[in-house]
Amino acid sequence: MLDLDTPDSNYSLEEMDRNSLFHPLTSISQHMANGPQIMGKAKGVRLTDHKGKPILDCSGGLWCVNVGYGRPEIAEAAKQAILDLNYWHLFGSASNEATIRLSDRILGLFHDHAGADHLARVFYGTSGSDANDTNFKLVRYYANLRGTPEKKKIISRMGAYHGLTMAAAQLTGIPSYHKAWSLPDGEVFYTDCPHYYRFAAAGESEAAFCDRLIADLEALIAREGANTIGAFIAEPIMGTGGVLIPPAGYFERVQAVLDRHDILLIADEVITGFGRTGAWFATGLYTLKPDIVTLAKGLTSAYFPMSASVISERMWKVFEAGSAEFGPVMHGFTYSGHPVGAAIAMANLDIMEREGLVANSADTGAYLLAGLRERLAEHPYVGEVRGEGLMIGVEFTADRATRRPFQAGDAVHRLVASKAQENGLMVRALPFIEVVSFSPALSITKADCDEAIDLFAGTMADVTSQLAAKAGT
Amino acid sequence: MLDLDTPDSNYSLEEMDRNSLFHPLTSISQHMANGPQIMGKAKGVRLTDHKGKPILDCSGGLWCVNVGYGRPEIAEAAKQAILDLNYWHLFGSASNEATIRLSDRILGLFHDHAGADHLARVFYGTSGSDANDTNFKLVRYYANLRGTPEKKKIISRMGAYHGLTMAAAQLTGIPSYHKAWSLPDGEVFYTDCPHYYRFAAAGESEAAFCDRLIADLEALIAREGANTIGAFIAEPIMGTGGVLIPPAGYFERVQAVLDRHDILLIADEVITGFGRTGAWFATGLYTLKPDIVTLAKGLTSAYFPMSASVISERMWKVFEAGSAEFGPVMHGFTYSGHPVGAAIAMANLDIMEREGLVANSADTGAYLLAGLRERLAEHPYVGEVRGEGLMIGVEFTADRATRRPFQAGDAVHRLVASKAQENGLMVRALPFIEVVSFSPALSITKADCDEAIDLFAGTMADVTSQLAAKAGT
Repeated sequence: MLDLDTPDSNYSLEEMDRNSLFHPLTSISQHMANGPQIMGKAKGVRLTDHKGKPILDCSGGLWCVNVGYGRPEIAEAAKQAILDLNYWHLFGSASNEATIRLSDRILGLFHDHAGADHLARVFYGTSGSDANDTNFKLVRYYANLRGTPEKKKIISRMGAYHGLTMAAAQLTGIPSYHKAWSLPDGEVFYTDCPHYYRFAAAGESEAAFCDRLIADLEALIAREGANTIGAFIAEPIMGTGGVLIPPAGYFERVQAVLDRHDILLIADEVITGFGRTGAWFATGLYTLKPDIVTLAKGLTSAYFPMSASVISERMWKVFEAGSAEFGPVMHGFTYSGHPVGAAIAMANLDIMEREGLVANSADTGAYLLAGLRERLAEHPYVGEVRGEGLMIGVEFTADRATRRPFQAGDAVHRLVASKAQENGLMVRALPFIEVVSFSPALSITKADCDEAIDLFAGTMADVTSQLAAKAGT
Repeated sequence: MLDLDTPDSNYSLEEMDRNSLFHPLTSISQHMANGPQIMGKAKGVRLTDHKGKPILDCSGGLWCVNVGYGRPEIAEAAKQAILDLNYWHLFGSASNEATIRLSDRILGLFHDHAGADHLARVFYGTSGSDANDTNFKLVRYYANLRGTPEKKKIISRMGAYHGLTMAAAQLTGIPSYHKAWSLPDGEVFYTDCPHYYRFAAAGESEAAFCDRLIADLEALIAREGANTIGAFIAEPIMGTGGVLIPPAGYFERVQAVLDRHDILLIADEVITGFGRTGAWFATGLYTLKPDIVTLAKGLTSAYFPMSASVISERMWKVFEAGSAEFGPVMHGFTYSGHPVGAAIAMANLDIMEREGLVANSADTGAYLLAGLRERLAEHPYVGEVRGEGLMIGVEFTADRATRRPFQAGDAVHRLVASKAQENGLMVRALPFIEVVSFSPALSITKADCDEAIDLFAGTMADVTSQLAAKAGT
């Protein structure tokens, strides 16, 4: 065998990657042709790739590094937690102090900052996918324990992203994640994507658009039968779908429909949670009353894989009441409530509170949004620039007047993100419609934002002629 | 609100746990009545609970802390990895050095220590559950890409444990994990549990038992149609099922059947991997040629949630060949290939290699097994003591002559594990049949084993009269 660790080995990291790693969400043929892009170091909002190229990170990884990279407090907390109790589980009433305190703190944040006093218990996993998979199972468990076993179907929405385990992928309403995977049918149904800019009919007002969405939801429930529908799952602001902000009044009206039909609301706050939108939680931003809130990403700022399903008092009461008859809750994971993850989450929340990062997200987010809008106002292929806090999307159009989209195969947003990265700015091209997203660390400064705006405006100028060719204009 | 962080608060951690945590694999009613058992500190194979009680850990957590608790090298590696690059992803050909090197190292371990030169790429997740969920999806993806889309069913076995996402729970063949969760039907089928001591017919030899298992497997394949069956999944030694060691020749014959019918073998080495059985991998122990190997637990010794699906060259070739037509592999997780997890896994493997922990597992495991057998040889309710390396099970019987099991509701194994913990020894009661397991850190010494044997023999003496009452003898 080659000795791979000596500096004179001629076996490059790039080759080693191609020969050993099965990359998620990657084209194998492109990967084998072009090789990996290896990230080297990261600090604050600054990345340095393996070859030393500096990059201003407006991705926050995958919308997740909320407190920024390389925090020494978190490094120290991780080290100490490992030395104290590097692992224990929560099975059979086992517990650990860090996870207990974190659970209390999460509930407190919802009670104090989101008006969600009804949230009552925290169940842990390691990813947003497994948390939504847990939620999928809990909807069924709830239906069985309360004696409405036929009430198990879940309504999701076109454009939704809820993860990629088998069950979570069923909840995800983006066709490219379904193709070739043969996901089961018949348990999840998709209602409309609440994105006015792209999906409104010609001449339809935002209010009329919202009316139509609600009517379609009612029609879906009527068609399937309310007695068969257990839950409705929604990202308050769709992330992977394209930073899609619902029309005014949407959630208020959706929630009234759900209440009328005794349907649970699952608020997927994997992206929106922990300050991303400028509020602690979008549950507060939209005055939601979810029965389950899905958390991940910002919970630990991605320093440790941790997710949570925060459940309501009414679900908990059903589980508790059924306990004697149904026995132990036979669900969970080895790493549910990992003590090192909990210690890291606590250190992460300490930073968020101490530095006022939620307020900074609102303030700096508004600044970044305004700056992007101003600088892109005249660009012929920028359709809409939108956002809440530091969750911002730029949507492209082939024709500003008619809002005609580019051809999907043109992948103009991928072209833009790729050119931005070449120019030293990391933004992300999203897989549903032609949008690039900005989701930097919540610690980003206005000076960083100025730099990002300049880099992005420059990038858009660089690609204008290519976009013109693709637009056919 | 109460101030929970001041020492004079009268709100105890136990109350806070009951009021905020939704425990996995726990009876809610018992938890509300009795409260949590809070673990405090851990070092090597020694636990100290929240109240200061010392416990010798023969559980290894949940079969996972292979190098033992509180390793300073791993604490330091975690800290440094966080300061360098606390997060990056693998999407869209993104990569990082630690994950690349870990992938190469995992393949090298399989090539060098398990004769598995055909294993070709590593896909990452954060738990054994999500890895088996990924495997469930990959079986379908493989079937679609190679043009045999009907060949998707999976055969599992009674007593199998493969995790608890919706899809992984379908693979799990233990009834208590299915009850009340309404898992989908029709995609997973269960063949016999290969546990001779409990499931052999009266007078049936081990060879005849094995013949029957193979005939039943053939019959199941014939009934469903080989053209509809994509994969067979097996733990080489069933863990949660009860440390169930297959009869001699079993896997050789299973594999011949699978080969004849073009059925993939998934070897779930979540427990058996990384030295647990005294070999690096049970794939080597049983000369298996799996198309997918599931890894988790020992990969990081539970210091960080990380799992992997190691796939064969023939699967990879199908995925690669289909890439141009089917596009990017639309599966994966935010934390697939986390750089901090990879750095921790590397430090963990360094310790395993430097300290010869795989050899110690074989050597000390044999010593522990012999000691338990000797001390329990005359106990009237100990049926079988079995194991490979440091994966050891003690199975109880109500009658040694007839091997009559205790009533499931008697939960004698829970009684034993509970009394052992009271006596200062952590072993685990398993949920399928009446077995307690020993799976300590692979760094355990013979002196520690002597202590464990004494504590367990004492525990068994303590409970003899209770077991006699339950046995009705």
